[in-house]
Order: sequence, then structure tokens, then C-alpha cells
Amino acid sequence: MIRIETLRLKAFHEGEMDGYLVFNSINQLYFTGVPGTAALLVPKEGESTLYVYNVNYEQVKAQAKTFRVELVNLKENLLERIAKRSRELGIRNLCIDSINVEGWNRLTKETKETTLKIDNNPVKEMRAVKDQQEIRLLKRAGELTSEGMKAARESLRPGVKEYEVAAEIEYAMRKKGSSGTAFETSVASGARSAFPHGGCTNREIREGDIVIVDLGATYMNYCSDMTRTLVAGKPSGKQNKIAKIVEEAQEDAFKTITPGVPSRTVDEAARKTIEASGYGNFFVHGLGHGVGLEIHEPPTLNNASMDILLEGNVVTDEPGIYMVGYGGFRMEDTVLVEKTRPKRLTQGSYSLTE
Amino acid sequence: MIRIETLRLKAFHEGEMDGYLVFNSINQLYFTGVPGTAALLVPKEGESTLYVYNVNYEQVKAQAKTFRVELVNLKENLLERIAKRSRELGIRNLCIDSINVEGWNRLTKETKETTLKIDNNPVKEMRAVKDQQEIRLLKRAGELTSEGMKAARESLRPGVKEYEVAAEIEYAMRKKGSSGTAFETSVASGARSAFPHGGCTNREIREGDIVIVDLGATYMNYCSDMTRTLVAGKPSGKQNKIAKIVEEAQEDAFKTITPGVPSRTVDEAARKTIEASGYGNFFVHGLGHGVGLEIHEPPTLNNASMDILLEGNVVTDEPGIYMVGYGGFRMEDTVLVEKTRPKRLTQGSYSLTE
Repeated sequence: MIRIETLRLKAFHEGEMDGYLVFNSINQLYFTGVPGTAALLVPKEGESTLYVYNVNYEQVKAQAKTFRVELVNLKENLLERIAKRSRELGIRNLCIDSINVEGWNRLTKETKETTLKIDNNPVKEMRAVKDQQEIRLLKRAGELTSEGMKAARESLRPGVKEYEVAAEIEYAMRKKGSSGTAFETSVASGARSAFPHGGCTNREIREGDIVIVDLGATYMNYCSDMTRTLVAGKPSGKQNKIAKIVEEAQEDAFKTITPGVPSRTVDEAARKTIEASGYGNFFVHGLGHGVGLEIHEPPTLNNASMDILLEGNVVTDEPGIYMVGYGGFRMEDTVLVEKTRPKRLTQGSYSLTE
Repeated sequence: MIRIETLRLKAFHEGEMDGYLVFNSINQLYFTGVPGTAALLVPKEGESTLYVYNVNYEQVKAQAKTFRVELVNLKENLLERIAKRSRELGIRNLCIDSINVEGWNRLTKETKETTLKIDNNPVKEMRAVKDQQEIRLLKRAGELTSEGMKAARESLRPGVKEYEVAAEIEYAMRKKGSSGTAFETSVASGARSAFPHGGCTNREIREGDIVIVDLGATYMNYCSDMTRTLVAGKPSGKQNKIAKIVEEAQEDAFKTITPGVPSRTVDEAARKTIEASGYGNFFVHGLGHGVGLEIHEPPTLNNASMDILLEGNVVTDEPGIYMVGYGGFRMEDTVLVEKTRPKRLTQGSYSLTE
């Protein structure tokens, strides 16, 4: 319930708003801890109402005990139902985290006496700064992810297919307690490694191929994200050279990760190292993104971002060099922003020469 | 390109609209076959423009050859860019598949001379009726899913933990060529099986426990969905009795699946059988949903649905009986709606007595 209280402080502090509708399902999960709900209505004071369809009603009732749980029938309109309750509660200024245009129009029609506003910032800000419980889950997700990378190293050899390596990765993570994958595991080999989101195919990996392995476990709904560039067999001098540049860039960015630093500065640190090596044009994406209940969430780390890092952010640090026709290199860890120094939540060394 | 032409026929047929903006990412995937794009602008005539951020630019350019692919910079506003192109193309009436309120407001600001409208129906209707290529992929996804269920049966025994069974399921599907899971695999045992979306925990399965196993593979972006109710060890008389009712309800609904039939009628068929057995109050969800690029998509099969089944729909048929404190039973197959008779895309018998 402390999260609901924090939301109230953030959303109602100016005294204008007196109701907040959490309509995004991941935001609902953040406040309730239970998946499968339809909406959450938080008034300025008193009980919050959690709306659930029949299919998940019993489970939510059993698991979200601190909320007033209301059953929604498939035949009724959820927004009409919410509008009715909002009127009963005397809400005059209702803020909504996010809604599509049809939903907005319907709610506008149903709440003629109420002023509606869209503002996801209160929840966005909260979710970007992880609390102790979240950090514990993100740490575990990071450990499981590192186990996945270990399985990738062990199963990678000439003759194996990309998706077979993915099978070993996911099996290892699951056996240790992961709830699944945070995104589609990527095992992109040979020239395909030049595509940052290469995914997996049935391509047979050959001796000397570069292989970008990008993977993430989930634990209790929390995600993790990690990439290493491996080689099937003995890496070449050129492969080792580029891998080392990426590794240095990742470390250079890592060192700047401190509360109060603009995330643009972190991106810049990695970019400078890669530019100095002459590969600047081949680092074709931003440095990273926040990680939590979703695999991509605030803050954003790239050269267009206005975000400032805060203690408790969890972000990826993932520079890369991608040469179409030759192959790609990326090194990524999930990193916790701490007061004194940053902490990698995913572990395991990089160097191709190992 | 035939899908783009079909969209034009559907979206521009009344002569009012002269541009269609595909803003939903799965809808974009449907038209282009390539994930990772940002927007697709289809004018009434001539080339369509596909917008892509730098990270996926090279991959999309290589794989979506029939489109004009434009690079979007992180520092620019995508909707501003689309508005500019829309003006250049002389679009006066632009239809959008789906957009959130902030996006709608921005686009309204940027396209003062253009009339905007939201209508996802053209794409929704297209995606609900699968073409031959999609059916081929859905069949393969169904086969991989059935392999997953085989692995569930083989690994289920007293003493094993729920998530360990999930590990075996997912490993078996992956090894045969699945790209991942269509949703979080559910292995809900004992009293937890009474929750339709139970997921997995580290609960140790005991002799005689009911276990609902709900799983789905993906193949080339297409999903599948299958549920069986298993028992660790020898099922009891009561377990067998309820399982048989659910099995009959599933078959009774299956027999009604024909083009032209309201999907409500299919739901009703299963519901009647369960009601006649006295368990009507325990069938707490709709009968099913469409399956394709997404695990839940049109048509919807429940008692509130207005959808009519069409040849080429792919839907789930999944009645269930859930008794809080005791346990649950569900049987589900993914079914292709064909002219003469329906076809199960997931296979494997049910009966607990086996």
C-alpha cells in the first residue's frame, strides 16, 4: 500500500486532481502485485477499487487483499462502470495514466461533470526508481540471466544451430527458477550478427563465426537483459580487436553511471571511445534503457534523452559496433544505479580470447 | 504486397479516405513481415513508406524490399515526420489504425489541413481471416505446441516442481524449432488449478494432484494455444468424471464451429453441456479467442461477442470448470475454421484415465 500512498503524494500534490485511474495493465501490476486486472481507481482518500473480469476474479481476490475488488461482467462496459464509481466517490478531476482515443472518448462521454487529464508521469517516475523489494527481484533475475549466458558459452560450437543454442539458454534459466524470457532470445551468427535485433534462425553456426547472444530471464515479473559477443572456435585478431573496443566503451560508460548524471552523458562516454577507435558510424543505437517490470522502460540512455540518472534506476549499458556484411559486436549488462558506485546485476566476462 | 492492396480495397472503398497510417506494431508486422518498424504510411496509390529507427534500419532494408524504407532519427518526432510526408503525398483524409491520446493530439496539431479518423476495422477484419501462408505457419506452431504437451505428460510425476515441468515443455518446443512461448507457460497444480491463469510456482506436485497445463509455441511470429488437465499418478473417480464433462463440452462446441455461425453459439454449445452436468457456475470465462500474430485477437468467443465465424478464422475452444479450494479442469485446442468441418491445429487426447 506504500506505493498507492506515494502515487497519491505525487498525483494529488497540487490539490487539483482528486482521482487517478490506472488503466495500463503493467502499471496495475506495479501497484497490486497481481497480474490479470482490468483497471485500478485510486481516489484522493479511502479505498482503491480494482476491477477484474470473471476469469481472474478468484485469483485476484485471494492475492490482492488490500484492495476493494470488483467483478466486471463481459457484457458491461468497463469505462461506464468506472465512471459510475467515480461519480459516487465525488471525483471531479480525474487523471488517467494512459488510454487510447476510443477509450478517452467513451470516458469523456460518461463523465460529463468530471475534468479528465492524461498524465503518466507520476507512475513513470515511481517505476523508474526501484525500491528494495524490486532490487531484490531484479538481482535474482540478473543471476538467472547470467546462468543463461553460461549455458550459451557451453553449448556454442561449430555445427550447432542458432535456435538450438537458444533452447539450451532458456532451459538453463528455467531450471534455475526463471519464469520465462524477458524478450525473444537472440543468437545471431555470422553476417546476421550485424543486425542488432537478429533473433534466432535455423542457421548452422560455423567455425570462426561471430555470435551475438542477447538474452534475459524474468523473475517474479521482473526482467533482466544481457549481451555477449562470442565466437565459435578461436577468434581472429580483428574480432578480438573490435570486441576489446566495445568492452572498453561499455566500461567507460559504466564508470559514469552515478545519481545526478544526465543519461546523455553516459551514452556519450561509450560513444567517444568507439569514435576514437574509428568505428563511430557503426554504433547505430542508443546506449541503453531502463529495465523493470518491462524490458524497455524509463530512463532512456541515448543522445536525445533528457533523463537524469537517479539512485535506484536499473538500466542497461550496451554499446555495439555493427558492420553490414561482416558482423556485429555488443556487450551489455543490466546495471543498478547506486549512491557510491554502479553495480552490475548481470555477470560474466566478455573477452573473446578466453 | 497483396495485403497492402487488400487494405486499400477495405480502407478506401468509400472514396473518403486517401491515406492509412498503420501505427500498431503488430499490424505493421502483418503487412511487412519484419518486426521492429515504427510506422507504415499507405497512400491511396503509389509506394508505401515504412519508418524505422537506426537500430533496425539495415535489417528492415534488407528484408522489406517492396517498401520505401525511411530512417528516423532519435532526435526527431516521428509523427511530425509522418505529417510532413502525408502533406507531400496530398493526403486529405487520413485513417489511423490505433493511437494513444498524446499521439492523436500531436498528429492533429501537425496535420491541420487533414481530416483524421481512427478505424482499426480494416486491419482487424483482415487479420481475423488467415491466408494460406498464415495457416501453414499456424499449423506448424500447433505441431510444436503439441510436442510441448507431450513433454509435459512425460515429465509430470509426484515430486517435480511446477516450473521444472515448464522447463521441459519449453525445451522440447525450442529443440523442435519453436521461437519461444506465445505466453507464460502455466503449470498450475493442486488447489492452484482453480485459477484459470495460474502460471507456475516452485510448488512440488503431489501424488493425485490435478495439474492444468496451458502452453503455446510460436513459429515465425505466429502463436498457438493448448491446455490439458493432467493428474500426477492415478486420477480419482471425481477427477475423471469432471474431466469427461469438460472434454464433452469442448467437443460439443467444436462440432458447431462452421463459417457463418455466431461465435456466441459456439460458446453456448459448451456452456449448455457444462450446465446440464450441474457445473454451470464454475465455467467462469468465455469459450475462446482468435489466435494469430497475437495470442488474443479477433474473433472473440463468449456470450457477449457479436462476431460471426468466417472461413480462415483460427480460434481456441477451451471450456473449463474451476472449483475454488478443490481444483480446476480445462481442455483447449487451437482450431481452424474450414468450409466443411473444423480442424484442430493442436493434437493429443485428453482423458485422465490414459
